[in-house]
Formats: sequence, structure tokens, C-alpha cells
Amino acid sequence: MLQLRLDESTPLPLYRQLYNQLRTQILDGRLASGSRLPSTRTLAGQLGVARVTVKQAYEQLIAEGYVTSRPGAGTYVIESLPAPLPREEPFRPHLSPWGQRVARVGSRRRTGQRTLPADFIDFGFGRSFPHIFPYDVWRRLLARYLSTDDVMLSRYGSVAGFEPLRAAIASYLRRWRGVRCAPEQVVIVNGVQQALDILARLLLRRGDSVLVENPGYTDAYALFRVHGANLVPLPVDDHGFPVEAIPPELEARVAFVTPANQFPRGGAMPLARRLALLRWAQEQEALVLEDDYDGALRYAERPLAALQGLDQRGHVLYLGSFSKVLFPALRLGYVVLPQALLKPFIQAKGIVDRGAPTLTQAAVADFITEGHFDRHLRRLRRVYGRRRRILAGALQNELPCAVTFSAEPAGLHIMLNLPADYDEAKIVRDAATAGVGVYRGATYHLQPDPPPSILLGFSGLNEQQLREGVRRLASVLC
Amino acid sequence: MLQLRLDESTPLPLYRQLYNQLRTQILDGRLASGSRLPSTRTLAGQLGVARVTVKQAYEQLIAEGYVTSRPGAGTYVIESLPAPLPREEPFRPHLSPWGQRVARVGSRRRTGQRTLPADFIDFGFGRSFPHIFPYDVWRRLLARYLSTDDVMLSRYGSVAGFEPLRAAIASYLRRWRGVRCAPEQVVIVNGVQQALDILARLLLRRGDSVLVENPGYTDAYALFRVHGANLVPLPVDDHGFPVEAIPPELEARVAFVTPANQFPRGGAMPLARRLALLRWAQEQEALVLEDDYDGALRYAERPLAALQGLDQRGHVLYLGSFSKVLFPALRLGYVVLPQALLKPFIQAKGIVDRGAPTLTQAAVADFITEGHFDRHLRRLRRVYGRRRRILAGALQNELPCAVTFSAEPAGLHIMLNLPADYDEAKIVRDAATAGVGVYRGATYHLQPDPPPSILLGFSGLNEQQLREGVRRLASVLC
Repeated sequence: MLQLRLDESTPLPLYRQLYNQLRTQILDGRLASGSRLPSTRTLAGQLGVARVTVKQAYEQLIAEGYVTSRPGAGTYVIESLPAPLPREEPFRPHLSPWGQRVARVGSRRRTGQRTLPADFIDFGFGRSFPHIFPYDVWRRLLARYLSTDDVMLSRYGSVAGFEPLRAAIASYLRRWRGVRCAPEQVVIVNGVQQALDILARLLLRRGDSVLVENPGYTDAYALFRVHGANLVPLPVDDHGFPVEAIPPELEARVAFVTPANQFPRGGAMPLARRLALLRWAQEQEALVLEDDYDGALRYAERPLAALQGLDQRGHVLYLGSFSKVLFPALRLGYVVLPQALLKPFIQAKGIVDRGAPTLTQAAVADFITEGHFDRHLRRLRRVYGRRRRILAGALQNELPCAVTFSAEPAGLHIMLNLPADYDEAKIVRDAATAGVGVYRGATYHLQPDPPPSILLGFSGLNEQQLREGVRRLASVLC
Repeated sequence: MLQLRLDESTPLPLYRQLYNQLRTQILDGRLASGSRLPSTRTLAGQLGVARVTVKQAYEQLIAEGYVTSRPGAGTYVIESLPAPLPREEPFRPHLSPWGQRVARVGSRRRTGQRTLPADFIDFGFGRSFPHIFPYDVWRRLLARYLSTDDVMLSRYGSVAGFEPLRAAIASYLRRWRGVRCAPEQVVIVNGVQQALDILARLLLRRGDSVLVENPGYTDAYALFRVHGANLVPLPVDDHGFPVEAIPPELEARVAFVTPANQFPRGGAMPLARRLALLRWAQEQEALVLEDDYDGALRYAERPLAALQGLDQRGHVLYLGSFSKVLFPALRLGYVVLPQALLKPFIQAKGIVDRGAPTLTQAAVADFITEGHFDRHLRRLRRVYGRRRRILAGALQNELPCAVTFSAEPAGLHIMLNLPADYDEAKIVRDAATAGVGVYRGATYHLQPDPPPSILLGFSGLNEQQLREGVRRLASVLC
């Protein structure tokens, strides 16, 4: 007599439950090789189910080779099944050296949302401000490509990206960012992180030195570390990466910089430093990765031209993303490559990942070429610029003057440099208690005990929230 | 006197052209350090443009540090600029060993579409058949998440994927594929290739052996090769991967298999081989990568349960994708991981790439949980099953009987095994001339001179095209 229990209250069909239980009993030996199963009629009667249910279960077992049906003689567990596998402890596979480095570096990504009181003012950053985005336009552009016969949904896209999007980005970068590039040099990626992952693999040998800013974009640094690179951090000042402080004897393959607006400290790299960095790259035969993560978000005058535009020899790779200027969930970035790296990069991308979704790429291409992007950028600059002014003004009025921050009218957050005797972790905790969310600067520093600093994103808060948030922060800091 | 030429017919604003030209002349030394620029009024007059145009160009040059304005005295090129960079040959960066392997492996991806005569019948494969997809439903589900205040567009998603989608996939896999998994074991990726790229790095040391099928899914093999793995191909037969032929002395870390329907030959792996493969993995402490690329597309009975469902110890990783069952441009795949690999995989994914677009994930989750996916799969099975029957019947009737193919009623293509004296390259060429597109099997073989074979995808062709296509092919083969 078989031990079977069917449950009508679960979503799994009865025949599937029956199949599962019989299968398990065959595999673990309770139903022995060669033994005969009850007839479908008998078993249906015993279980109180329709005969077709038993029949379907048997048919699936036959199709998968657990049992065999001899016409007129019934259904038998097959003879040749290997002995059941012993149940043991779960298998723990060994990780490669790369996997072990990943486990050590860990991941600092924010993966969820905290639940906060309703009047909590969260100076969260690294996100866009959704209310500004022209959803009506976006919806219309997406719908345009959702017609049933459109080939764009049914084929794999090009590895390097959807051609019209590459052309639209090249044109945008020439107009707004002073980048020198042909459309073919623009390759679409699933965000800057993917571009860096491919570049690190293409360019870095284990132990190669990579020059980086400190504090800086530590997500990129984690990647370089996992690839076995030796990070050489230089302390940034109000003018970004201190090129003149590069140790003359250092042999670095790559420098990673944010010239338009140093992340997270703020500050633009002046021309003299830019030219000196290019000269260094030329002398060292090194590459400069220019992460222009928010170069378009400058509020005083036109955005400063990208470093890439000064480079005549192919030493600069330009990295951009739509996360800050459209919305993060879009997951589209791009890299502008010098000719010499174009083919290797596209080949590598073709091997490790196919292209980004064609539909989204087509919609973004139209968003740019039909003028919505320029309009949207102008609007972002107006709105964010105003928020930054309000925040900066409130900070200046309310906070002790020993607290400083970059005057650069750019970006989506302000980093406050605190006096050395402040305890940044305590400030963040106390601020949360006072109803305001601010973020630790230590996350972005490479040394174990960095000078205290906190970060305030302003893009998601309105004027009243900005002022009230600063008041609450001041009550903690003063 | 400055050499400047402005062109009103280009899309670049005049002030931007002027800025570009002045910048270039400063950088290459034609405008010397310390020299005085003409007044805005004078230059505007010379160029015949509005004075505001010259002013804007000067302001940008001032903002970027090329020139400086001394009140009352005019505008001067700054003094401290480093000497101009010598113009040299483009820089050719050295590639890492990984980069050099990429260059050797190259990429075989299809990146574009050929232009073909109107009555050409293309047995292309690896694509879905867009006319079946319920675009109206899809459009409605996407639109649901396009409302302006939706947090889903404005935040980065979770690295492991959108929770409701992970739960929906887990439930689908339990119901349709016999996979044993909790939602937390399901991680969303940008396609199977990304999952393999991460797994290869997590698991493989340089020189580790990887067991693979031959012929097989060579895109995956290119990836293993680039990671420095040693491929050990075993020739498949009508029942897939020949487990009994694994060399007993071989120490392999990983086996890559397609048990539901061997790619590209066709054929399901019977139970005995599946159990033997699990036993091998257990004895070798190896992992089995089960690529279930089209396991849901089986036309005779319910799909065969996945190998993963037989595994009790965490030796099997299950890889799935929506490319074949929804549409390729979606770029969504998933991997079901044993508990021991969950954390390392998610950490690695967090470092090398952020999550997939939240909007698409949310729409796919609803597509599954609201029953559209099950309905769509039933429809696909009906339509594709019919097409396969028609193609198989036509092949049987029209082709020489020395040409064989798998009888397995599954997948989206049929691979024809040709007699040894056939020249497959010539057949593909001749077929194209006869107005029918068929594809070389050699692409999927690992040996230099494989037995001749050709592939015919049937999902994109209607009954009449299938029959006529086979007639044209027969005229070439007979």
C-alpha cells in the first residue's frame, strides 16, 4: 500500500502532486525497481480522485523514464535505475581566487528601502527625482515600439548597442559635453559598473596599479580590487584629483577620475590639472577612465567640457550613464572608447553579455533625437540648481562655520567636511533620531579612520523639507 | 588676426563653434599664453555674429579656465598653461592576458540583419516568433508601472532581482519544470550569458577542466575559454550528454549540459543518465550547470522535469531565460542557485553589475502571476508543435533518407545530420541561391572538421513557407 497524500488546497495540480510523490518514492527506493504500481482505477479509488488524474501522473512518469507500461500487464518501476543517491550534507563548492576576493570585498550596495516615519526627511542620494521626469512622453515613446509586428522586440540587439541610440548619444556628447567621438566609438552598456568590469578585465593584470581619488566612487574600487589591482589613492582637494601629487616613480596602468565634479567631495578639475593628467598618461602609456557620472548637472553656466575632449591620442575613456539624468531603473550607460580599444571591448561584451533591451534603447534614442532630453536636462538644471542653492544657503546659515563644503554648483548632493573631533557615525545616528537622514562619508574613503564627513542628497526634497532638514541637522551638530 | 570660421548650417550653436575653435587654438599654441583676445564687440563685428554669441563663448572659456577676464582690461589666455601636448600616433594600450584571449576567441554573435529577397525563406533560429506574443497585455502591464509617482522607476533595484519576480519564477519553475527552489534561490540576470560569466569567475581557476557537450552551445564555451578553462567535449548522441563516457580519471570542476533538449542536436537525457551525472558530480565534488534554454517548449506531453529537481545536495545550478518564451529583446534570465553559492553569486553580481530594469521585471512578474505566462506557453506549444510536425513531415517526405534528425518533439529548430560526404558549407551557399536560408552545424562543433550538419529554425515560418522551404532545400540536397 502506497503512502500518498494529496492536498486540494495548494495551487499544485493533483496529478502533479501525485507525480512528485511517486517520483520521490522511486528515487529514494521506497518503490523498488521492478515493482508494480496499482492500476489507475484502483489508485484513483483509493485516493478519491478522478482516474484521469492518476493517468496523467503515470504518463508523466513514463515520459520521464521512471516507470514503464506493459500493455495488458500494468505499470512497473523500471529495472535499471541506479541505486538511490545517499543523502548527505549540502555540497559546498570551492570558490576560485576571484570568488574568494569577492567574498572578502563583499558588497555595500543598498538593496532595499528602510521604513521611516512619515515626517522623516531623508537626504538620500544617488537617486533621481522622479516627479520631474516626463512620464507621458516616455510612455508614448515606449508604446511606439510595442506594436505587434515590430522586429525590435523579437530579435537580439546588436552587441555594441542600438545604432540610432549610439548616434544620438554621440551627438549629445559633442553638443553638451565637448566629447570628441564618432557614433561607432559609443558602446551601450548596462550601466557604468558593467563597463568598468569589462575594462578592468581587458586592461589589468593582477597587481597592476590603479590611481584613484580618495574619497571616491568606492563601488568602482571594489571592482578593481576584485580584479586583483593595487589601488593607489590620492587625497583630492577642492579641485579634484591632485595630478601633481602622483608619485613620479609610480607605474600605473589606469587612473580613475571624476573631473567634472569630484565624487563625493565636489569640485571641478581645472584645465592645468587636466592637461597635466593627459601628459602623465602619455608619458606612462596609461589610460584615464573619466567617470562623468553627473557632468551634465551643473547649475551655474554650461557644463564644463569633458576631459576626453582634450585628448588627441586615445588615452581617455569616457563613461556616462542615464541613471542620474533620466532614472536609475533604466539601467543604461555608455562608454566612449578610443579606436584601439573598440574591437576588444565589443568582442568582450559579446562574450560576457548580449546587448541591452532594444525597446528601451529605441525609446531613449527617440527621447534624445526628438529634443526631449535637452528640454529635460534644462529643466533638471533649473530645478536641481534651485534646490542646491536653497540647501547651500540653509547650511551656511544654520551650521557652525567650521563645517565646510564645496562651493561648486553641481551634482545631486553636498558633502559636509566636519571638524576632526566630530564623530560622524554618532552624528548620523543622532540625526536619524532627530528625524533627518544623512549619510556617512567614511563609506567613500579608503583609509580606516578618515576625516569625518557626511553626505546630503538634495534632489528628492522640496524647499520646505530642505530647510527643515538642515534645522534638524543643526540641532545635532551645534 | 584670428583664423575662425563659423558655419550656420550645422546643428552646433555658433557660440559653441567659436568656443571649440578658440579652445583648439589655445591648446595647440596658436593662441599663445598671455595673449589678449579681441573684445566681444570687435570679434562679433569681424565674424558678423551677435555680440552675445562671442560673449557666451568667452564665458565658457573663462569657466573652463582657458582665458581670464581682467575687468576693464579685456580677456587674456591664461599664463600658466602647460606646453601643448605633442601630436603623436594613437595610443595602443596593452591588453591583459584575459583581453588577449578575448581577441583570440573573437565573437560569433549575429549583430545585424541581412537584406534578403522578398520571397526568401529563412530558417533562422534562436529567435522567437513575435506574432504570437500578447502585445496588448504586455503594453497594459508596462503602462501600469509608468505612472509618475512610482518608486519603481526612480530607484536602483535589488541586486538579486525584483522580489515579486523571483517569487513568480520560483512558482513557475516548481509547477512546470519540477525545479526545487525557494524564491530566494532565484537570482535575476541580464541573460544566461551574464550568469555564466559570473559563475565561471566564481568557480573556475585557470586550467580547470569543464565538461561540455559536442556539438553544443558554443557561446558558453567561448566564455569558459576566455576564463582560461580547459574544455573537455564529449560527443552527444540521441539521448544527450553521454555520462558513461566521462573519462574516469578526469577531474572536472563543472559540467555544462542541456538535458531537456540537447542543443543543437536535439534529444532528451533519460533518467538513468541524469542520475548517473548527479552521482558523478557527487563523487567528483563537481557542479552541473543545467542550461534549460527551451525546456518549456516540448510538444508531445508535459515538459520533462529539470535535472535540478533530482538533486538533493546542491550540485546543480539551473539556468533559464525568457528569450525563447517571451522575446529576446527583453534581456532577462535567471539562475537557481544552491544555498552555498547564493551569497557569493549575489555579492559578485553586486560588484560587476547592478540589477536589471525594475520596470521590465515588474511587468514580467505580473505577466506570470496573472496567468498570462501559462496561457502564452500553452499557445506557444500548440503553435510551435504544429510547425515542428509540419517541418518534420516535409523533411521526411522530401529529403534523402540518409539525412537524419532527432525525433524529439521539442525546441525551435531541427538539426539535420548529413551523410559524411556532403559539403555543408556548399549546401548552405547553394540553398541561399535557391532562396532558402539554412545554417551551418560546424559553428556548434568543437572539432575542426565535424560531421556535416545544418540547422533549420521553424518558429518564424508559416505552414506554406515551411513546405516550400523544404522543397527548395531538397532541390539542393538531392
